[in-house]
Amino acid sequence: MALYVYKFGGTSVGSVERIKSVAEKVKKVHDAGHQIVVVVSAMSGETNRLVALAKEIQVQPTDREMDVLLSTGEQVTISLLCMALHSLGCDASSYTGGQVKILTDSSHTKARILSIDDSRIKAHLDEGKVVVVAGFQGVDEHGNITTLGRGGSDTTAVALAAALKADECHIYTDVDGVYTTDPRVEPKARRLDKITFEEMLEMASLGSKVLQIRSVEFAGKYNVALRVLSSFKEGNGTLITYEESQMESALISGIAFNRDEAKLTITGVPDLPGVAFKILGPIADANIEVDMIIQNIADDATTDFTFTVHRNDYQRAKTLLDQTCIELGARKVTGDDNIVKISIVGVGMRSHAGIASTMFKALAAEGINIRMIATSEIKISVVVDEKYLELAVRALHAAFKLDQGAES
Amino acid sequence: MALYVYKFGGTSVGSVERIKSVAEKVKKVHDAGHQIVVVVSAMSGETNRLVALAKEIQVQPTDREMDVLLSTGEQVTISLLCMALHSLGCDASSYTGGQVKILTDSSHTKARILSIDDSRIKAHLDEGKVVVVAGFQGVDEHGNITTLGRGGSDTTAVALAAALKADECHIYTDVDGVYTTDPRVEPKARRLDKITFEEMLEMASLGSKVLQIRSVEFAGKYNVALRVLSSFKEGNGTLITYEESQMESALISGIAFNRDEAKLTITGVPDLPGVAFKILGPIADANIEVDMIIQNIADDATTDFTFTVHRNDYQRAKTLLDQTCIELGARKVTGDDNIVKISIVGVGMRSHAGIASTMFKALAAEGINIRMIATSEIKISVVVDEKYLELAVRALHAAFKLDQGAES
Repeated sequence: MALYVYKFGGTSVGSVERIKSVAEKVKKVHDAGHQIVVVVSAMSGETNRLVALAKEIQVQPTDREMDVLLSTGEQVTISLLCMALHSLGCDASSYTGGQVKILTDSSHTKARILSIDDSRIKAHLDEGKVVVVAGFQGVDEHGNITTLGRGGSDTTAVALAAALKADECHIYTDVDGVYTTDPRVEPKARRLDKITFEEMLEMASLGSKVLQIRSVEFAGKYNVALRVLSSFKEGNGTLITYEESQMESALISGIAFNRDEAKLTITGVPDLPGVAFKILGPIADANIEVDMIIQNIADDATTDFTFTVHRNDYQRAKTLLDQTCIELGARKVTGDDNIVKISIVGVGMRSHAGIASTMFKALAAEGINIRMIATSEIKISVVVDEKYLELAVRALHAAFKLDQGAES
Repeated sequence: MALYVYKFGGTSVGSVERIKSVAEKVKKVHDAGHQIVVVVSAMSGETNRLVALAKEIQVQPTDREMDVLLSTGEQVTISLLCMALHSLGCDASSYTGGQVKILTDSSHTKARILSIDDSRIKAHLDEGKVVVVAGFQGVDEHGNITTLGRGGSDTTAVALAAALKADECHIYTDVDGVYTTDPRVEPKARRLDKITFEEMLEMASLGSKVLQIRSVEFAGKYNVALRVLSSFKEGNGTLITYEESQMESALISGIAFNRDEAKLTITGVPDLPGVAFKILGPIADANIEVDMIIQNIADDATTDFTFTVHRNDYQRAKTLLDQTCIELGARKVTGDDNIVKISIVGVGMRSHAGIASTMFKALAAEGINIRMIATSEIKISVVVDEKYLELAVRALHAAFKLDQGAES
């Protein structure tokens, strides 16, 4: 007998039919003698409907009242899923975040979980019940309703799995696992059976939007075995876990990419202390997120400074940077919003040399010019012209033999 | 400075525009220096939407899960109303029934309020905030979400008014008060400035569906001054309060009627102890509600037994009664589902003789045959053929000079 926490997102519970099909899946595992806690999101579309209602009333509603409003979405789903389980003859009870209780801090709309009282859930599991918990929500110490922000239901599931010491936490989504890269770009992309938390973090933050980063961080921190599976297809999905010895032969696990990048360069900046802050300060003040940052010493006493931002922020960032250029007496600002970032990710990099050169060689063989390079312990990212994206991803996929199951 | 509890029903908060208009009304009173607690229902249509979702999943959902589902309706409204108040610059906080906390028994879908923790509300009121509370809902001692059943939001408002010792509890509806009778039947019907709790109870149970009976009972029990007003029209509405000396001159306050009646008679029943139970037992077992009951001794040792039921239950009741007729060896069963009940209500009956004869004389003058009569301390009800309804109501309205403000 195992204890599982299953999480189903908005698409997986997006209609009455899908809720019924989730109930059938849960019942099957429950009938096999396992204990199950199910975490659900709001039905897809419901959160947007509620946000639209709020916006009709107030342009900028308070975070506290938004949480009161949005938390109803998951509350609807938990009751409907319990009804679907009951109609299959499966005993189940629903709980809101506040009832469980998932205690958070008071940062409305982006609260962090502080603790979970697992006594009630355990009692119900021991009675043979399925326990259905509303994702995304909790209560603060004063009893105010809070929500956990984007991907909050994943976080709820992982936190419950940690608190209950579950055997596995299953995240059901509309993809059937984590792939070596996006199959729409490289049809030979292969589903990974396993991936480490660190690799998953790099893959997620780089645009493979399977899981929210926070839930992976949380799972890593509390050593919760996390499995990503499809709600709609059979299969074992991808297990996200700690690095194991049998994984050591893996060079890289996958190729992530991000189409939404734009790069900005300011050249001829007087190379004085504090110059990076003077360049990035106004960008940060404007709430523009900066991704890659590169600084090179050019000739004489000036430096060139390059960074990437989300493409939507490109024009705003450029305007700010033009102003900074004048203030700093720098030479000029150049930019390009037709670039993409491609990254190879793998814990194997730690113990294997020559991976970067394999990467650069593969790109060079296709005549792809590398515009920027950044590296971390388990990742190498390059920026290339957007037109090379597909070509580059396929070349790297082949170079690292990802279609051949090199990861295990 | 007064403390008010305002309650707005589903129609009054049925759209974004109406929620904004409720916020304006509340702000005006708050600006005048009063303390206000606002109780709201689900937006009209929302409860039906949720029930339809549930029914798609399970024919007969459990009461516990229905409560989890339906309580989201009011939770949406409280947050939206707070946003509307904020947008007018009025400080406000929303609370679910569980947060306040409105402790109920565990009878899901028809829970009864046991206690209210008023400390949090009082603290907020003293800070100058408007407090917005979800009607219709509470929590039991185990933290399960409960709902109070039909008219539950009225009950929440009255219970809060009692707990907070509010000066008045205002129930805003789509009518502007309690009338001497239905203005659609008698255009001369007049809005009452005041009515006693007892009269209101008789009026409500007889079909003047302004307020739910439970909330009036509750208000009477805890001596909460209750005022019924229109959400859409200015005016003072009708105050429901205890009998006062200046009311003594009132003969009757209003005329209630109920179109949905049907009557059944079983004749020639052997007049033995327990016969009433043998007749009504199967009816009660079938969950059919019986309204008026009349038993007459006929000739020899048999009795005739007549009762009324809701017209929808007529056929079912008749089938059961036919069976009972055979079992008891009674003569026969007759019935009529083309009847209505008309009642005159007034605390003045207690101290004034001759009211019944005035009633019967007025009906006789119009040639209206009375089929049944039943009386209580402050009410006289008659059953007449349905075709006489309007004629009878107008005749009685005139006979008791209700259009002339006889009540005060």
